[in-house]
Amino acid sequence: MTAPAGVGVSLGDFSVDDLETSRREFRQQLFDAGFLVPTGVDGLYLRDERFEQIARAIDAVVSRSCAGEVGRTYHFPLVMARSVLEATDYVRSFPQLAGIVNSFDGGDREHRRLLGAIDKDGDWPQLMAPTDLGLCSAACHPLYPPQQGRLPARGRVVEVYGQVFRHEPSVDPARMQVFRQHEVVYLGDADGARHHRDRWVERGLEIHHRLRLDIEAEIANDPFFGRTGEVLAAGQRAEVLKVELVCPICSFDEPTAITSANCHLDHFGAAFGIETSDGDVAHSACVGFGIERIALALLHTHGLEPSRWPAAVRDSLAW
Amino acid sequence: MTAPAGVGVSLGDFSVDDLETSRREFRQQLFDAGFLVPTGVDGLYLRDERFEQIARAIDAVVSRSCAGEVGRTYHFPLVMARSVLEATDYVRSFPQLAGIVNSFDGGDREHRRLLGAIDKDGDWPQLMAPTDLGLCSAACHPLYPPQQGRLPARGRVVEVYGQVFRHEPSVDPARMQVFRQHEVVYLGDADGARHHRDRWVERGLEIHHRLRLDIEAEIANDPFFGRTGEVLAAGQRAEVLKVELVCPICSFDEPTAITSANCHLDHFGAAFGIETSDGDVAHSACVGFGIERIALALLHTHGLEPSRWPAAVRDSLAW
Repeated sequence: MTAPAGVGVSLGDFSVDDLETSRREFRQQLFDAGFLVPTGVDGLYLRDERFEQIARAIDAVVSRSCAGEVGRTYHFPLVMARSVLEATDYVRSFPQLAGIVNSFDGGDREHRRLLGAIDKDGDWPQLMAPTDLGLCSAACHPLYPPQQGRLPARGRVVEVYGQVFRHEPSVDPARMQVFRQHEVVYLGDADGARHHRDRWVERGLEIHHRLRLDIEAEIANDPFFGRTGEVLAAGQRAEVLKVELVCPICSFDEPTAITSANCHLDHFGAAFGIETSDGDVAHSACVGFGIERIALALLHTHGLEPSRWPAAVRDSLAW
Repeated sequence: MTAPAGVGVSLGDFSVDDLETSRREFRQQLFDAGFLVPTGVDGLYLRDERFEQIARAIDAVVSRSCAGEVGRTYHFPLVMARSVLEATDYVRSFPQLAGIVNSFDGGDREHRRLLGAIDKDGDWPQLMAPTDLGLCSAACHPLYPPQQGRLPARGRVVEVYGQVFRHEPSVDPARMQVFRQHEVVYLGDADGARHHRDRWVERGLEIHHRLRLDIEAEIANDPFFGRTGEVLAAGQRAEVLKVELVCPICSFDEPTAITSANCHLDHFGAAFGIETSDGDVAHSACVGFGIERIALALLHTHGLEPSRWPAAVRDSLAW
């Protein structure tokens, strides 16, 4: 949603100007309290130890909630093979959010040109060449290539601590360009995938209720690019593939998705050659907890002094 | 060090071929045991929960060792403002290791061209444009911009949990393209910086001795690019600015730097406008513990079953 400068678009009793002001104010409060440190780039922040304590506690809540049923737990770096951006179709559907890594591959002569560009007008990035690396587009994406082949009869459930990049600079502290997603991913048949997704919508609601967050489940769609994207988004909503758990952070009129649960149908199974034990193309589903967003929802809801959060919340965080 | 294919360069009794074989073998052992999962890109791996347990234990050792003296503790994302790559001179000196982030900034028309390039020959990365983001070049680099201004009289000591990117694909599992550096950084006057560095060389040796690693301190230099770089590297060695703590991982003849302690002189103070309480340009120094490398040194030295590591090592890790 965009509005011309100075023109508020009505959102019920709220305006876009109010929303922007409310987001800037909350971000400034986080800066003043030291939880986040500005870097000069919107959506990119240094975090202090207290913010990380909250993040670690949320991660532990998620891990405990899936401990009985996951086979393996993996931790992913922010960088992945660039080929995953193609195979998942991410760069087709969300090129505006995707990131690839460029570096320098020249010799002494090109190096002199690079130094010249740095000195002259700072326009050196055009002299860097694409590498085979991209930035992780969703926590579960790097998981799929090693799953190639046949799954066990009951499918597979995997826990993923991932880091995600989205190129979407914003003053909204809840819209970071780099953030953590803690996922529980199912690979198996279609029924198993739908069941996993539905069960984790319920379980996600329970978890956030225990954290005393004002949470609701909503049917949602991804921000597919362009005109073709509108069709894809409408299809995603019509099939109820994506459910977001939303919570007011800076406005009750436009709550923020802090967790989402998604059915991928056989999209990743087909792209990465993953099969059920019967030899069908595997389906998959995941729930992704947005660690930074949940931390911000807690700070916004319960205040900037975690030692004074309600006892029930601190209990749920095992503090 | 490079050698033509099939030609071993003698390193004492060891050859480059032997070294490469030894590195591939250790990496395969790590894959087979599940600590690391291959991604198809050398130097880029998924990590399992047991590897992370080791990493967390090492992080905790470092945190305990500096707990009494650090002012603040920060956690940094892998992405930083691209301007930091310029201000630190990193992209001048190490362009071959640096990474910048490109994304898509076109409209529907350019999107069609992008889709065409993906379908045709996969040469779509050239259609992505530079953003204002770069990948973190050293854990402490994002720390300096917010330090602009005058320091307290005793200087400032900061603990940093950082993530670093280096574009240097390698079969050596200890040479990852994305890794964690846990740093303790000093900002203040020249004497304080030298003292910090020297004290952390000693303390670093102690820490690694307690982990029963075969550690030694060596004067070192950074891999500055090109012919000018050779001069910079020689100067760095002559002034004894960089000391590396090295440990054999895949070869006794060419041990791996797993921790390093560095004097930066007034390089960052001048670049980022940081002053001592007397108004002089600030000096800085840091120690950086390479978390993945220390974990690999432990696995190589004590075996791939951490529950059977020597009691003294497990005690030091507070296990």
